Amino acid sequence: MTLPANTAAAALLQVLREEGVDTWFANPGTTELDLVRAVEVCDGVRVVLGLQENVCTGAADGYGRMTGRPAATLLHLGPGFANGIANLHNARRARTPIVNVIGDHASWHLPYDAPLTSDIESLARPVSGWVHRIASASDAVPAAREAVRQSVVGGQGATLIFPADFQAEGLVGGALVPTATTQTVGTSDHPAQWNPATALERITSARRIVLLLGGGGERSALGERGQRAAARLVARLGATAFAETFPSRAERGRGLPAFDRLPYFPEPARAVLDPADLVVLAGALPPVTYFGYEGHPSQLVEEGRLLRLADPGEDAAGRLERLADQLEAPAFVAPEFPLAAAEGALTPQGVAAVLARRLPQDAIVSVEGGTCGYPFYAASAAAARHTALTNTGGAIGQGLPVALGAAVACPGRPVVALVSDGSTQYTIQSLWTIAHENLPVVVLVAANHQYAILRNELRRGGAALGARAEAMTALERPRIDWVQLARAYGVEASRCGTVAELDTALGAGFSAGRPMLIEMSL
Amino acid sequence: MTLPANTAAAALLQVLREEGVDTWFANPGTTELDLVRAVEVCDGVRVVLGLQENVCTGAADGYGRMTGRPAATLLHLGPGFANGIANLHNARRARTPIVNVIGDHASWHLPYDAPLTSDIESLARPVSGWVHRIASASDAVPAAREAVRQSVVGGQGATLIFPADFQAEGLVGGALVPTATTQTVGTSDHPAQWNPATALERITSARRIVLLLGGGGERSALGERGQRAAARLVARLGATAFAETFPSRAERGRGLPAFDRLPYFPEPARAVLDPADLVVLAGALPPVTYFGYEGHPSQLVEEGRLLRLADPGEDAAGRLERLADQLEAPAFVAPEFPLAAAEGALTPQGVAAVLARRLPQDAIVSVEGGTCGYPFYAASAAAARHTALTNTGGAIGQGLPVALGAAVACPGRPVVALVSDGSTQYTIQSLWTIAHENLPVVVLVAANHQYAILRNELRRGGAALGARAEAMTALERPRIDWVQLARAYGVEASRCGTVAELDTALGAGFSAGRPMLIEMSL
Repeated sequence: MTLPANTAAAALLQVLREEGVDTWFANPGTTELDLVRAVEVCDGVRVVLGLQENVCTGAADGYGRMTGRPAATLLHLGPGFANGIANLHNARRARTPIVNVIGDHASWHLPYDAPLTSDIESLARPVSGWVHRIASASDAVPAAREAVRQSVVGGQGATLIFPADFQAEGLVGGALVPTATTQTVGTSDHPAQWNPATALERITSARRIVLLLGGGGERSALGERGQRAAARLVARLGATAFAETFPSRAERGRGLPAFDRLPYFPEPARAVLDPADLVVLAGALPPVTYFGYEGHPSQLVEEGRLLRLADPGEDAAGRLERLADQLEAPAFVAPEFPLAAAEGALTPQGVAAVLARRLPQDAIVSVEGGTCGYPFYAASAAAARHTALTNTGGAIGQGLPVALGAAVACPGRPVVALVSDGSTQYTIQSLWTIAHENLPVVVLVAANHQYAILRNELRRGGAALGARAEAMTALERPRIDWVQLARAYGVEASRCGTVAELDTALGAGFSAGRPMLIEMSL
Repeated sequence: MTLPANTAAAALLQVLREEGVDTWFANPGTTELDLVRAVEVCDGVRVVLGLQENVCTGAADGYGRMTGRPAATLLHLGPGFANGIANLHNARRARTPIVNVIGDHASWHLPYDAPLTSDIESLARPVSGWVHRIASASDAVPAAREAVRQSVVGGQGATLIFPADFQAEGLVGGALVPTATTQTVGTSDHPAQWNPATALERITSARRIVLLLGGGGERSALGERGQRAAARLVARLGATAFAETFPSRAERGRGLPAFDRLPYFPEPARAVLDPADLVVLAGALPPVTYFGYEGHPSQLVEEGRLLRLADPGEDAAGRLERLADQLEAPAFVAPEFPLAAAEGALTPQGVAAVLARRLPQDAIVSVEGGTCGYPFYAASAAAARHTALTNTGGAIGQGLPVALGAAVACPGRPVVALVSDGSTQYTIQSLWTIAHENLPVVVLVAANHQYAILRNELRRGGAALGARAEAMTALERPRIDWVQLARAYGVEASRCGTVAELDTALGAGFSAGRPMLIEMSL
């Protein structure tokens, strides 16, 4: 058999690779078979199989956050794509570039409303900055180039719908027609009013300043340069600074300042923000409460108190540095933080302390779940230098696949997924891919056998938790056995109930350099 | 604390219960908390918790297929709903009534584009016959009534988006405004041209007739009455009859005719259909190939050879009976089928034979996955009377949750999920709910450690399977240990490699009457 090296599907793979998109997180079906066949003839492409699509999209998010380049996802029609929407929602909030490729029925088959037919565009638009249906075989190449561009410039998912008949068609050289763009690259709703003179004047005349630092890559306020500059400004202005509540990516650990995250609930967030007469947004969006809470405004800082130094995606680090220089801020001195001590039965604080102590240099920590996430973020200022990734869009089931994608993106860097039992169930199939690819991911599952966040919300204002509401938020009868679950997917696993046990297990996990899951009984 | 018995959320629960919707498959979040609180004050409502939303929607599909009444789903915002879209797609193809209730941000919070904000309507429309955003607290009751009506009449998912502030608001009696319907109940695109005289004439003048029988409840062609009448017509006319390829529900087993399903691939389907000069659609849609295949038409039977006896949802059984009477067809005589024998190592045929032999009276069998699904359907004519449910929309990950929902719908009936390892991973979390509710579901997993359907498609026409394509369709390195996986979720489990082992395990499973998983090594 001769392999079809010149199909539009093969051309799409090759042009994506040329554009730097060489990693695919895939769960293909019958309408993607010519893309599968194309992998056979296209070298230099890595395909990582996921057993459920939200694993693929979450992994593409983790990959994109760490590299700044898009990964591709390969998804099957509307229902397969739909399975991956939740983590594409998170990726959209993280401004992660991703190129989704969805196979569709042959164009001539579509009108017959076969069982798997659905309105893919309607499903794709809410999580894609750009959606394009490939209109012919010759449209595949320009469409692929435009998808990469839209994805990178817009910091958004770009979605290509690729009918099966066009995938299979042979390409005649040179017959490439420009793609019709169905949506253009999104521009910011609030282009940063970066007027250095005005900014300087507002900053020097303010009495109480809060800096709000947005996450992202090296140019973001939560890269190393941005944080150092922010620390200089804090020292010069007597300001306070916070990371946004859910940064897509933040550098953390020894040698860096220890900016806490803006609190999640409105009361503590307002305690920070209300007294400020100026809130400087350095790559962060204006702070908005996560949900609507009676008695609290949605936008926590009115427009008049905001200074937009940099919008997300802009050069926040550069502007912070320039501001610090202009204000003749003192040089950055790395603070010293003692590592917290802990012993006895495991508590969230104990987990945070042990992990901060054990964390290897240059680790990546994917944090999802409130139980241990907040304590670790606080404790991790004293840890070795590492990168933290958080859940940007609130669609849970993101921590494990993001860790997977980050591990694929950064060979050689140890990866930790610090997750909770409730949220981890949504994409539990990630464990298989982590084992299959033998990725050095240590999964720490905080097992409290409940949807703790919901109980916290139900108890807000001192309300009692009713019996039925308690049952609806319990992961009990039976308790999930995380050790057996991990082993079923080929991941080594153990269970810890004390700080000492966790310390031993973590030491073993990090030195093994292979997948490991630790169930932490809390 | 006094519980808020008079909130709009509580009113919605109560009016749904009045309308016969008393079972909820739920995965709530912070924007559904007043609906959770309402459960506390609303008796007669059963809430079944799912750990991922596609479990909830698939279970609602299984419930609706068995009862003919909608279950409700409780889902969290756009991303939570998105996780459940795939099985809502299947439910739409099965014409299963379902009422989805999605909490959304407080209406006054929505403009601020908080992290979890998304275009829920755009996500919901492709899988909902009717979508309505509740516009005020007083809209909740009429909207709930209309949702049930739309869902039942349209045989479709009806989706209610319920902003959190309206959920929490108190209702003042009598202030109920009629809901504005944003879409009306869908009517059939092809109302059946049921003209008895013309039908009779076309049927009596045709030489070679194929009856195509659509699935559904008692009035469908695949209920007991419909099948008996179809068998009489087959005898009278020398016709052949097939079930549609993926019936939502079909009665099967001893005392009934043994109609095979229309083959999946176009070649054998055409071998059946091409020679016919009349294809009578009894509650089935015109046959369309599952995917587009070069060299085959999409619609396998052109309009001129079709006779629409009944559209899906219409009284196919009644019309088949009337036709049989008019043609003075002979009385139905139940055929005798020998139970197939099997021994040795497990094969799909062996699985089918053993299951057909062991199946208890009145079992419900949820079939997903080609490996054992087709052989069992063939063998099951000789089994005890049972109900078969298949994957109607091709979104895989449906077999397990549909079994779950059917078990909730039909207490006392044993349930079998006959599934494959590839598709079952998509909604593996179903196992926890099956254990939590202690449902008598025996899960049979055909573990061949590959996406066999994709390999079959790749090999069509004699093509060789390339090494990379093979890797992309392998569930190997590691193989999933289904026994440990089931036990992790609290489900008893065993592994079988021979017919004798499966026979023993099935006997134990059915007599135990509690959840059990059997990994079948194929």
